[in-house]
Amino acid sequence: MKIVVDAMGGDNAPDLIVKGCILARDEYNVGVILSGKEQEIKKILESNTTNYKNIDILNADEIITNEDKPVLALRRKKNSSLVKALNAVKNNDADAIVSAGSTGALLSGGLLVIGRIEGIERPALAPLIPSMKGGFSMLIDSGANVDCKSNFLYDFAIMADIYMKKVMNISSPRIALANIGAEKGKGNKLTIETYELLEKSVLPINFCGNIEAREILRGEADIIVCDGFVGNMILKTLEGTVKEIMSGLKEELTSSFVSKVGGALIKPSLRNFKNKFDYSEHGGAPLLGVKAPVIKAHGSSDEIAIKNAIRQAKVFCDSRVNNLIEESIMRR
Amino acid sequence: MKIVVDAMGGDNAPDLIVKGCILARDEYNVGVILSGKEQEIKKILESNTTNYKNIDILNADEIITNEDKPVLALRRKKNSSLVKALNAVKNNDADAIVSAGSTGALLSGGLLVIGRIEGIERPALAPLIPSMKGGFSMLIDSGANVDCKSNFLYDFAIMADIYMKKVMNISSPRIALANIGAEKGKGNKLTIETYELLEKSVLPINFCGNIEAREILRGEADIIVCDGFVGNMILKTLEGTVKEIMSGLKEELTSSFVSKVGGALIKPSLRNFKNKFDYSEHGGAPLLGVKAPVIKAHGSSDEIAIKNAIRQAKVFCDSRVNNLIEESIMRR
Repeated sequence: MKIVVDAMGGDNAPDLIVKGCILARDEYNVGVILSGKEQEIKKILESNTTNYKNIDILNADEIITNEDKPVLALRRKKNSSLVKALNAVKNNDADAIVSAGSTGALLSGGLLVIGRIEGIERPALAPLIPSMKGGFSMLIDSGANVDCKSNFLYDFAIMADIYMKKVMNISSPRIALANIGAEKGKGNKLTIETYELLEKSVLPINFCGNIEAREILRGEADIIVCDGFVGNMILKTLEGTVKEIMSGLKEELTSSFVSKVGGALIKPSLRNFKNKFDYSEHGGAPLLGVKAPVIKAHGSSDEIAIKNAIRQAKVFCDSRVNNLIEESIMRR
Repeated sequence: MKIVVDAMGGDNAPDLIVKGCILARDEYNVGVILSGKEQEIKKILESNTTNYKNIDILNADEIITNEDKPVLALRRKKNSSLVKALNAVKNNDADAIVSAGSTGALLSGGLLVIGRIEGIERPALAPLIPSMKGGFSMLIDSGANVDCKSNFLYDFAIMADIYMKKVMNISSPRIALANIGAEKGKGNKLTIETYELLEKSVLPINFCGNIEAREILRGEADIIVCDGFVGNMILKTLEGTVKEIMSGLKEELTSSFVSKVGGALIKPSLRNFKNKFDYSEHGGAPLLGVKAPVIKAHGSSDEIAIKNAIRQAKVFCDSRVNNLIEESIMRR
């Protein structure tokens, strides 16, 4: 199996991306193709390993940045690390792709270069949100589709169900619909219609009804279904709140001598606590519904996050998630 | 001026509601009508004050709870504290209403009993979200309208603009549109259309473009405009995250002897920090767009929160917000 990694994407590219690839190659015995500036990548490889087995370089001189318009960039920057990586998957030179670069470009590339699974109208981005009790909930869609119909949301649930079963080993994932109230009949037109579809599904899914946004962190659902606009709002509100609280707390803890002493004593506890929100442990967000595994790693990914995203891509391939999605969609 | 308060609504009703009314009467020299079970209210009054000036009781034997279906309850529970309070406003026996009870029933009551301001299609609920830098941002709509058109959102912005100017004394409120990206052109159909309306407004508003959910707590906008479904998701995600982090932190801080000592030392800092998220200081969420001031106090309101909600209702009346809304809507 070969996994192509966009070596130039992300805040820590290419250094920590390349290091993460070396770690993954060593730990999971997987072939890695590094897409990006050959000379730069070689230098990093040389100073971190003497073993080049299972590591290939796909030279690409251009870089797609977060400032580029996704679709335009895909068309104009044919020599970018991302486009070359996407083409490697398309041409079966690689089985899956991992990138910590522009989310928009990766989503568009997944759709336009790799292509949709037959029967899936809209692929969806599905990050895993940490729960306070441990474990994760999948939030699908978190931004790939901003205007959705109820049948899109139904397909999101089906795809996430298979992923959580096969990749995360949850035997009967609890599926909930993000909504403004718990009772059936609550919500906007989209969620009311989606509720009906999920409730009457012919596929054997474990639909548990609506979930309010207040409950999301509590881990009471394994899969949270919503349209991409709403998913983006949930995800970004959550991330922003955690970030602001943590930095506000830090400020408060250095405001007096006593609180500084107290702060020093609770440092290990605080670190434990912060780790609960650590995204790097489980890899990245899969784009579900395209023909090959596409993993969006967090922009701030370090080598451990990249290593884990590669592991995730490998399990995604090994577990035949996409074949199962194809089969389920035909029966729905 | 007389403000009617639903004495039976909220987690701490009627005890702390009545106490809050006494505080407000004493501090703001405002007339208060307590709607609810007369005997119960009298008892609480008697054990808390000897001065009954400016306090009236409107006897009501029924209570609308959070479990009641709002519209049905309004129709069937004519003798409820809420319906009687709403009617007092409708009949000009009171100038404004405050309730910490069922949000749905208060919203429906505002709309159906008190009625819309001419020209306003959809009244909106607009809580104030604390910013980490101090101050507040108004989130409008946070749940009154789950399916919105762009002209509704435009009116939300106009109403909030007047409120923030007149009640919160912000001279030129920065208005932002909640969206999945900062650039113009980002978003779903609704936000793209709303952006155009806000940008081309004939009324002199300070529209600052899109705001991502990640930035909301940072206080970079005074008014955040969105549809009620999205607003509910933002508000509830924020509340849930704060709550889960605080209780998770508490657990972590009692996990070892050292962290317990540290936790004791930082207790005052932690309290300071928690106060930043305290809703009670600024009262409640106004329902903007109805003919008389309607203030939804938080369900968990204590006497201070109720006192502040009454002050807010008073300023709302004094500052002629509704007349200004009416005038602006005619010119938009």
